[in-house]
Amino acid sequence: MYELNELLQQIDVAYDGPSITISSLNTLSDATAFELSFLQNKKYVDQLQETKAGAVLVTEDMAKHVPDDSIAIVVEDPYMALAYASKLFAPALLDESAANAVVGEGSVVADGANFAKGATIGKNCTIMPGAYIGRGAVIGDNTIIHSNVSVYHECSVGSDCIIHANTVIGSDGFGFATSKLGTHTKLYQNGNVVIEDDVELGAGVTIDRAVFGSTLIKQGVRMDNLIHIGHNCEIGEYSVLVAQSGVAGSTKLGRNVVVGGQSAFAGHLEVAPFTNFAARSGVTKSITESGKTFGGFPLMEQKQWLKLQVKIARLLKS
Amino acid sequence: MYELNELLQQIDVAYDGPSITISSLNTLSDATAFELSFLQNKKYVDQLQETKAGAVLVTEDMAKHVPDDSIAIVVEDPYMALAYASKLFAPALLDESAANAVVGEGSVVADGANFAKGATIGKNCTIMPGAYIGRGAVIGDNTIIHSNVSVYHECSVGSDCIIHANTVIGSDGFGFATSKLGTHTKLYQNGNVVIEDDVELGAGVTIDRAVFGSTLIKQGVRMDNLIHIGHNCEIGEYSVLVAQSGVAGSTKLGRNVVVGGQSAFAGHLEVAPFTNFAARSGVTKSITESGKTFGGFPLMEQKQWLKLQVKIARLLKS
Amino acid sequence: MYELNELLQQIDVAYDGPSITISSLNTLSDATAFELSFLQNKKYVDQLQETKAGAVLVTEDMAKHVPDDSIAIVVEDPYMALAYASKLFAPALLDESAANAVVGEGSVVADGANFAKGATIGKNCTIMPGAYIGRGAVIGDNTIIHSNVSVYHECSVGSDCIIHANTVIGSDGFGFATSKLGTHTKLYQNGNVVIEDDVELGAGVTIDRAVFGSTLIKQGVRMDNLIHIGHNCEIGEYSVLVAQSGVAGSTKLGRNVVVGGQSAFAGHLEVAPFTNFAARSGVTKSITESGKTFGGFPLMEQKQWLKLQVKIARLLKS
Repeated sequence: MYELNELLQQIDVAYDGPSITISSLNTLSDATAFELSFLQNKKYVDQLQETKAGAVLVTEDMAKHVPDDSIAIVVEDPYMALAYASKLFAPALLDESAANAVVGEGSVVADGANFAKGATIGKNCTIMPGAYIGRGAVIGDNTIIHSNVSVYHECSVGSDCIIHANTVIGSDGFGFATSKLGTHTKLYQNGNVVIEDDVELGAGVTIDRAVFGSTLIKQGVRMDNLIHIGHNCEIGEYSVLVAQSGVAGSTKLGRNVVVGGQSAFAGHLEVAPFTNFAARSGVTKSITESGKTFGGFPLMEQKQWLKLQVKIARLLKS
Repeated sequence: MYELNELLQQIDVAYDGPSITISSLNTLSDATAFELSFLQNKKYVDQLQETKAGAVLVTEDMAKHVPDDSIAIVVEDPYMALAYASKLFAPALLDESAANAVVGEGSVVADGANFAKGATIGKNCTIMPGAYIGRGAVIGDNTIIHSNVSVYHECSVGSDCIIHANTVIGSDGFGFATSKLGTHTKLYQNGNVVIEDDVELGAGVTIDRAVFGSTLIKQGVRMDNLIHIGHNCEIGEYSVLVAQSGVAGSTKLGRNVVVGGQSAFAGHLEVAPFTNFAARSGVTKSITESGKTFGGFPLMEQKQWLKLQVKIARLLKS
Repeated sequence: MYELNELLQQIDVAYDGPSITISSLNTLSDATAFELSFLQNKKYVDQLQETKAGAVLVTEDMAKHVPDDSIAIVVEDPYMALAYASKLFAPALLDESAANAVVGEGSVVADGANFAKGATIGKNCTIMPGAYIGRGAVIGDNTIIHSNVSVYHECSVGSDCIIHANTVIGSDGFGFATSKLGTHTKLYQNGNVVIEDDVELGAGVTIDRAVFGSTLIKQGVRMDNLIHIGHNCEIGEYSVLVAQSGVAGSTKLGRNVVVGGQSAFAGHLEVAPFTNFAARSGVTKSITESGKTFGGFPLMEQKQWLKLQVKIARLLKS
């Protein structure tokens, strides 16, 4: 929690306007009156015009689009200013003043499992050696956390889940602002990961925490090994991802989407429920119609891809 | 070990026929008189006709093909019934009544290494901090297990092996039965992983345990980092897999197969010995002739793939 | 440190020439008068002619190209002889005679973090549970090492770095000599990994140690999750690698190279600074001109790749 003028002083932004209390950072569309937001890309100017944010970091030419109830903070590079501000809100990794971890009745905690202070484990769980449950993380009931799994601070795993060995839940999303000189300033990832009930994650999976809000893995999802899920993704109920697939940030899969092995999704896409992807699909556009099967890179309907291979075989013989 | 009628009662299958003792679950072709099997896909009806299984879960129309010495159990969805039954045979992760882990003469166990009760370590091994050796797991002689490796229960690693950091041996294979509503029921993976002698596995590799029987990594295999091996695979002697490749379930590579980086194999294939694959090969069919070199996706002989690239370059200029 | 004749005796090479002291192994171009080198591939004969190595393993026909100041050691298979010799120089994983790990002022070491003897941690670091810092490894100031990270012996991580959970720094590079019978002999990886200041590595990344010298991750690099970096690579300042990409051994990226997700680089390439690669680029040739954008496999300029997709779409309709 910061006073706006104090916050701006800390990130070296000159400001002598009115101050308000800022509790966190957020996107234009999700921010509330106690949050600071930003506009980097002018194509989102309509989001700026409708924002409920208490204050917004903008370039000079965009200041006129900031709504009356919101304070415009003019900076040269809003995303870089956001990155500097994000450090002020970065959640602590450890908190020695927190209470000892709470472990529910019937849970088995193997020697060598590690809990931060402030972690909460439900009933009838099994926590294997080398697993780490971070500060403020919550594990539901009947869940198995295998050896050497890392659950970062403030993330949650539901009930009846199985998390296989060496999987990581809540590592930082891949975010930074790059200066004109090519150096990078970290955008602290102040959100978390929420995994709902009845989810099974394979070994060596990595799920990044959200920059704001939550990366969400919905009920009944099944993931194979070595899968990467970027920050702010949402994986729909009962979706199935086969090994070594990757989903870039902010992409949302609907329910019962099936993803073949080594597939990849670009960021900021939406995929309709009950869509199927063949192995190695490369998805760069949203899919709006349910129930179809796709493949290839660039992506096409799988039957088209098969037809294409016939044409290519013919080309080879010509 | 269950009486058949008791087992079926536990998974809510109505049955009033004769009972036999069931010690485990298995495939039609491998099951013995003390095992329960299943037929899901009618194209395997000839395996059903020749099975030695004590009992078989089948749909009504297939019951007539069950051999006389075997008991037909009629259910609506045999694979779903198998999934429910598999939970009854799931091996325990921990066993507090087992003896303390045994460590052979000359072995060095670093502080922070974790052994379950019932684990066995051979002579002259080095077990690094954070490594976990599960219940009933066996490590041979002169083997090095690096930091934060996870070896699940009942898996074995041979002698003279090196397992690099954060690799996982024996996580559950990717198996579940999906209902008409799209929910998934776990098929417990009751097999294990067997790694023979003189094997080196890179960092961040994941090798899944078999659903029945063993996932087998044969003598002298070399794997690079971040490789995925599915359940019930068999990797032949001295085969070499370069980083980030994946092999889907039940695929068998012969000896001295060389797999370039980021390659992928579909499930249930057989690959002849001494086959070479260029980087990023996508293998969807079995390979029966030894000693050839392939590449591309769809896969073709590598010299064809190179020719194809020339044609494509020409197409681009046209 | 070995006397040459004693070293050769240990690897079963007959030799009765003069002896010198050999302190380590190295490549022809980097070796000094106290090092043993080798020539396997005759196309590098000019490197042989200019080597400063104290002694060189060569086949009989190449012996005449060994410089006068260097001793020619004639063997049937120089690379295999090197592999045997490499074992003699393999660095120890642990050293009980070393001093206890040193932890700088202000650093927070969580319960469950593991240090080998001889490790050094700088000031104001945070070392999370299950992290392992090996013998002789050095961590700079203000660096965060997340849970279950493995830092092997003799590797170094700079100041102001963040290493996310379950990442591996310094696992062995993928090197072995294969006999005519198809068996493999390990080439011990006697180098290390050096990570400079202000580097952030994602979760589940694997960075292999060099066979000789160092794998080098330069200042300001940002890596996403599940990335593989082979031995002896060099990643230039402020370069950015997106998730699931892989770089094979000895490839060097210049500064501010941007690599899209699931891309791959063959070994022994050089990439000019400020080069951009679209997702899934497959790079098999060096890139000499700065500032261009590439994509596809085989690689082409991204604008060509986009054009090719139009042609392929047309082919599909024809």
